[in-house]
Amino acid sequence: MTGTVLRPTERNSGSPAAHALLDVLVGWGIRRVFCCPGSTEAAFLDAVVERSGEVELVLTTHESVAVAMADGAARVTGQPQVAYLHTNVGLANGVAHLTAAQLGNAPVLVLNGLKSTALQGRDGFTTVPYPRDLVRQHVKWARQVSSADSLAADVARALRTSVAEPAGPTWIGLPQDVLESTVPVEAAAEARRAVDVPRNRPDRNAVADAARLLGGATRPVLVAGGDVARHGAVDALVTLAERLGATVLGEDRRGFQRTAFPTAHHRFAGWYAATHPAVVGADLVFFVGCRVFTEFEAPAGDEFPRHATVVHAHVDPTEVGRLYPVHRGLVGHLGAVLDDLLAVLPPGPPTGPRGEPVRGGAAPPSAGNPAGQSAANPAGRPGFPGHVGLGPVVAALVDGLGTDATVVLDATTATPALLSALPQHRSDQVLLSSSGSLGWGTGAALGVRLARPGQPVVAVLGDGSFQFGIQALWTAAHYRIPVTFVVLNNGSYSAVGSALHRFGGAARRTGRWPGTDISGPRIAEIAAGFGVPATRVTGPADLAAALRAVRDTAGPALVEVLTGPGRQADPDFSPRDGDGADAPSGRYLDPDFPRRDGGDAGAPS
Amino acid sequence: MTGTVLRPTERNSGSPAAHALLDVLVGWGIRRVFCCPGSTEAAFLDAVVERSGEVELVLTTHESVAVAMADGAARVTGQPQVAYLHTNVGLANGVAHLTAAQLGNAPVLVLNGLKSTALQGRDGFTTVPYPRDLVRQHVKWARQVSSADSLAADVARALRTSVAEPAGPTWIGLPQDVLESTVPVEAAAEARRAVDVPRNRPDRNAVADAARLLGGATRPVLVAGGDVARHGAVDALVTLAERLGATVLGEDRRGFQRTAFPTAHHRFAGWYAATHPAVVGADLVFFVGCRVFTEFEAPAGDEFPRHATVVHAHVDPTEVGRLYPVHRGLVGHLGAVLDDLLAVLPPGPPTGPRGEPVRGGAAPPSAGNPAGQSAANPAGRPGFPGHVGLGPVVAALVDGLGTDATVVLDATTATPALLSALPQHRSDQVLLSSSGSLGWGTGAALGVRLARPGQPVVAVLGDGSFQFGIQALWTAAHYRIPVTFVVLNNGSYSAVGSALHRFGGAARRTGRWPGTDISGPRIAEIAAGFGVPATRVTGPADLAAALRAVRDTAGPALVEVLTGPGRQADPDFSPRDGDGADAPSGRYLDPDFPRRDGGDAGAPS
Repeated sequence: MTGTVLRPTERNSGSPAAHALLDVLVGWGIRRVFCCPGSTEAAFLDAVVERSGEVELVLTTHESVAVAMADGAARVTGQPQVAYLHTNVGLANGVAHLTAAQLGNAPVLVLNGLKSTALQGRDGFTTVPYPRDLVRQHVKWARQVSSADSLAADVARALRTSVAEPAGPTWIGLPQDVLESTVPVEAAAEARRAVDVPRNRPDRNAVADAARLLGGATRPVLVAGGDVARHGAVDALVTLAERLGATVLGEDRRGFQRTAFPTAHHRFAGWYAATHPAVVGADLVFFVGCRVFTEFEAPAGDEFPRHATVVHAHVDPTEVGRLYPVHRGLVGHLGAVLDDLLAVLPPGPPTGPRGEPVRGGAAPPSAGNPAGQSAANPAGRPGFPGHVGLGPVVAALVDGLGTDATVVLDATTATPALLSALPQHRSDQVLLSSSGSLGWGTGAALGVRLARPGQPVVAVLGDGSFQFGIQALWTAAHYRIPVTFVVLNNGSYSAVGSALHRFGGAARRTGRWPGTDISGPRIAEIAAGFGVPATRVTGPADLAAALRAVRDTAGPALVEVLTGPGRQADPDFSPRDGDGADAPSGRYLDPDFPRRDGGDAGAPS
Repeated sequence: MTGTVLRPTERNSGSPAAHALLDVLVGWGIRRVFCCPGSTEAAFLDAVVERSGEVELVLTTHESVAVAMADGAARVTGQPQVAYLHTNVGLANGVAHLTAAQLGNAPVLVLNGLKSTALQGRDGFTTVPYPRDLVRQHVKWARQVSSADSLAADVARALRTSVAEPAGPTWIGLPQDVLESTVPVEAAAEARRAVDVPRNRPDRNAVADAARLLGGATRPVLVAGGDVARHGAVDALVTLAERLGATVLGEDRRGFQRTAFPTAHHRFAGWYAATHPAVVGADLVFFVGCRVFTEFEAPAGDEFPRHATVVHAHVDPTEVGRLYPVHRGLVGHLGAVLDDLLAVLPPGPPTGPRGEPVRGGAAPPSAGNPAGQSAANPAGRPGFPGHVGLGPVVAALVDGLGTDATVVLDATTATPALLSALPQHRSDQVLLSSSGSLGWGTGAALGVRLARPGQPVVAVLGDGSFQFGIQALWTAAHYRIPVTFVVLNNGSYSAVGSALHRFGGAARRTGRWPGTDISGPRIAEIAAGFGVPATRVTGPADLAAALRAVRDTAGPALVEVLTGPGRQADPDFSPRDGDGADAPSGRYLDPDFPRRDGGDAGAPS
């Protein structure tokens, strides 16, 4: 990242401050700005015209998409990315996905075009008294620039802060008068210079103690968290697992952000849960680069392995011992932690394998499915139906995707089945957000693809998430970004249905599930309307073929697969034959109108 | 609103707290809850199943739609409406449109399902340390409920606070453990009882002084603000104008929220601007129920009529003299203000008309078009093209709509032309948000229609706004809400283009306009995919006919009209003939790829 040579530029017009801002971004190696602009950003946009050989604008039609794209690109590069949002309303629209960037430790700089300082003081159009308050819980640092003189330094500080560990988002408010200031201003050399992020090493004595504990354990379990991948330390963790003969588990799925261990490795044995046989039988559990834990609800029982010696390594000291005391904490960059551990553990080949890793256990819980039910077969009756037949669909999906694709998941109730089934050979092969912010995956996948030219990228979405992230289809089509979107359409908010089922009240008694029926949209048709070639298939038999058919498409593609239990699985339900100007078929004029389900509103009279 | 009889209900199951919450809502006459739920809201949803004869859930597929629907319904009824949002991410998604409710003084109660208190303390899934901070700048009052015992009282207080003048949104955070508490709890009678909102009267001496000033003026101008309509005082203002022989102007369009004076009335003479001849020639200007002003940028010249005597009546004392001192302020409900003024002014017929109202003046500025340019003919060359031929389209729109429809506007650069041309015979016939939050109109129109059974409602949207509010189509289709959506599709963010044009830099010099080209979507096809019957027309000739054709449709309908200068106006550009599963035509695989305009990103390699 260092050593970028800045090209001299001619500045015939425009705002010196906007050019100083671009100097900083270009000096940091930032070549794209993800943006949903308004009038306050004119000086920046105009400067981009003059600097079009250096930096490009990636236009989005909703701020949430800009944030998710920056997040996706930041996750897979580790480099800072910029989302440029418009005023208070644009910032608000970006906040939900910013929580994903925060939890994913993505170095996303949010530049926020604000109205002029004078207009802010007059409570003018699209101003808010304290814009910083909208975002400060989700960023490491937030500052409204007070003058053109400090702009470059403020932006550079935000970039340094974003990439410093633990990495995360920052926010810079850019008032229009500051951006359009005609006062000559230059970005100082130090503002333009990207920095190497120093790797903080763990305490030497702590390493020695952890090595002693690890070396003395007879049934050790390593829990691989996303930061192992983020810090480029997967190989080191593999080495450690092999040297210890340890069972390796992926982190609790509710906190899963990214693939951190090859799931086909012979020491990998599934996903962390307190009830996993390896955990039950362990005498030591080493949590490496994961949060302990991202809980879906306050634990009723013991999620923490109290019977075992617990070691926890994390780059963020506040994460070590946050909810539970541990016997040994290691604070540091995980590359340094693992290197240091390997250096003091007995070298060379393992002293002898301790047998096969301990496998087994039920599907662990995940957000939206906290009881760990199989989504395809929820316990109890009458039960919310969820994704009927999801198992074969997942199998067809894995078959059709091949083994190379990077998969971005945003399909709430299907996530456990997908995480278990998807090939995960390398770092970051599966990406997921633990934020609960639906729609993140659509934009994130586009950002991943732009950051990884030539890499196949697939986003697997639920139909609920599809609607939340729908505007990303515009950007996908406009720039012909070759991402394949797979939408598992079960026509429902099945996480809500599952929650109602667990609640065990009137909904379960009557079989009426308010707030769950989101059937209706013909998703492939909507995507085609956006300019994304799209296919609807009605079941697993056609899914793999449809995926193979689009695998080498030069632009985006979408495959909708009907997985739901209701009318959408009706075999005679097919896309209509008319053109876009016709009324849709009477199927949508529901005969049981005005009351679709238990509590939804009736017809307006 | 008072005197609602509560029906006794059987409570065989579920959460007493959720039922107490419903008791309060039902007691206040609230029959619909606009909701985008998640698992934390299960107890509420379950209670709705048991109380389905009393209250209905209106499901939305994005939180922004729930907020906008509640806002629309609240605006036209004056009654409190409820948007129920899910956790921190759902709340964040609702914030942008909540600014519209705030500026529109809409009594919207946001109920926000939060994770359990215990999980909040453990920084669990979808928690944020201070959820209240996300919203407190946009609500009058915000409280996280601390126990089931206080829930009913807290919600009732929020409702009272929302409807108290100046009306506006409130927020209640509802932790899951509180909502699911099994402790017996009843809503106290006073919590269930809706209150009459007292009309505060202006000071007697202030009224006498204002009457003296008004009576002594020879060239008075009345500026009618949205609160005149909100307070049901339009007739009183008409009487005042006739008695004084005053010229009446609508409030500055940048602050326009709702029709407050019949525009066909012989005393109506256009929209407030400092340069309007009536204002220039006035010896007194009476601002009635408007903000002075909602500025688009800090004023370069004088927007305030310093040469005249200024009287300002507003229900919010902080609005009177906020930016400029006035000669006489009147603080009170506008019905009371106008009644009191009429009571002390000389009674009976006017002492003699003072001639015709002073008309004339250029199109006033509006947000997105601050220079007051005609959108159809921007000044200068090469100029950003904007809506080519918008004038005939607006004429066709007015022709096709008829004179009865309530029109919700969400079309940034077309707003000035539309506001001038649309028939406005009665209060609230045109509704608009001064928030700048794109996409508000789609949901707001649905809320208006649900609140006004039998009333034709039309939403006029730009193509940019269409994408921001797109999820509302799902709700429109699911409940068959008979709103007609008209989308003016110029394929661009023309407000951004206009700002670049005004900036006068490289964009204007080169004719490259980054961040403006949002062409591509076939909006009618997208709508049809959502189940909304839709038509695309290519110009004004077909628009009026298309609108007349859908006027009596039982459900929603959408008409897309191409108004842009680019490829979309190409006469051979038409909806494709294939079905939804086909790839779109090659038109979308743009031949000038990888570089679409000045600064947008190229192809991923």
